[in-house]
Amino acid sequence: TSSKELTYSNRGMTLEEDLNVTNQYYLEKKQAVIHKKPTPVQIVQVDYPKRSAAVIKEAYFKQASTTDYNGVYRGRYLDFEAKETKNKTSFPLQNFHEHQIEHMKQVLLQNGIAFVILKFVVTDQIFLLDATHLIHFYDQKDSNRKSIRKTDIEKYGFLIKIGYHPRIDYLQVVDSVYFPDEL
Amino acid sequence: TSSKELTYSNRGMTLEEDLNVTNQYYLEKKQAVIHKKPTPVQIVQVDYPKRSAAVIKEAYFKQASTTDYNGVYRGRYLDFEAKETKNKTSFPLQNFHEHQIEHMKQVLLQNGIAFVILKFVVTDQIFLLDATHLIHFYDQKDSNRKSIRKTDIEKYGFLIKIGYHPRIDYLQVVDSVYFPDEL
Ligand SMILES: [Mg+2]
Ligand SMILES: [Mg+2]
Repeated sequence: TSSKELTYSNRGMTLEEDLNVTNQYYLEKKQAVIHKKPTPVQIVQVDYPKRSAAVIKEAYFKQASTTDYNGVYRGRYLDFEAKETKNKTSFPLQNFHEHQIEHMKQVLLQNGIAFVILKFVVTDQIFLLDATHLIHFYDQKDSNRKSIRKTDIEKYGFLIKIGYHPRIDYLQVVDSVYFPDEL
Repeated sequence: TSSKELTYSNRGMTLEEDLNVTNQYYLEKKQAVIHKKPTPVQIVQVDYPKRSAAVIKEAYFKQASTTDYNGVYRGRYLDFEAKETKNKTSFPLQNFHEHQIEHMKQVLLQNGIAFVILKFVVTDQIFLLDATHLIHFYDQKDSNRKSIRKTDIEKYGFLIKIGYHPRIDYLQVVDSVYFPDEL
């Protein structure tokens, strides 16, 4: 058994951290209300020490049944998952779970906006790809490629501008893709 | 220190359980995609035993920064919190946290649909009350009543039919309140 304290440095969640800061920016600017969902945990045992906070002493990570981010923008429901890869020329589809793809299909059926934010770590490029394209590639993965070519992501997706504040201004892309009439 | 195993019987979450089953029904019928957010937990220590699942050994409950339920229905963003009381004639406002009220205000500003589902346990009555009314009563609570009169909930809210399947058919009320043109 090895044991680990979770700290900022070893969580390795740069893209997630940047998106959380970006969402906080949108919230403060009253542009959108988008939050990351908490990590689902199955709690088994809790201690209640006198005069201090309850301590969870045994719990397990659960598989999430949805994507990580959702919220509201311009009255519409917005839903996305964010993933990164160290690959240079393609994005592995194993990064996505069956139930996440299933969730995106359900969201599209309800006329929600669903996409993924894909980061190529080596070149520091971040793309928005609509869920319909991801689903298309995912559903072919058993008979076809196990990854999406970067050239296809460039073709069907949209490069997101990286800045300082907001760091990952994905709503700019969302505007042009999903709200072309309101520009 | 006292310690407790969490089981169905002592979690005391009847309303929550019923809503989860209802949301699962809506999902299967392809009527809406609405999920309860996981309980937010601050994870401090995780053990990684060889050949078995990671065990969280120390964690704490965190204050949620949003309401518990959200999702998409008819393309619109839907957001709500569910609470129950054993009171007979009023609903205590202390059931709601400042940041939940703040979150509802933000959702309304983005043109999302926000409401609360309020259960009077003794009479087994469940109401849907739009967030604007809750916010109105909440913002007056320091200078005025610390609870909402049940007569006001009956006046401004809507009784939800309780059934077997779905158990708490709140979308029926949502239709009449927020989508009157589509009936
Ligand atoms: Mg994830
Ligand atoms: Mg709650």
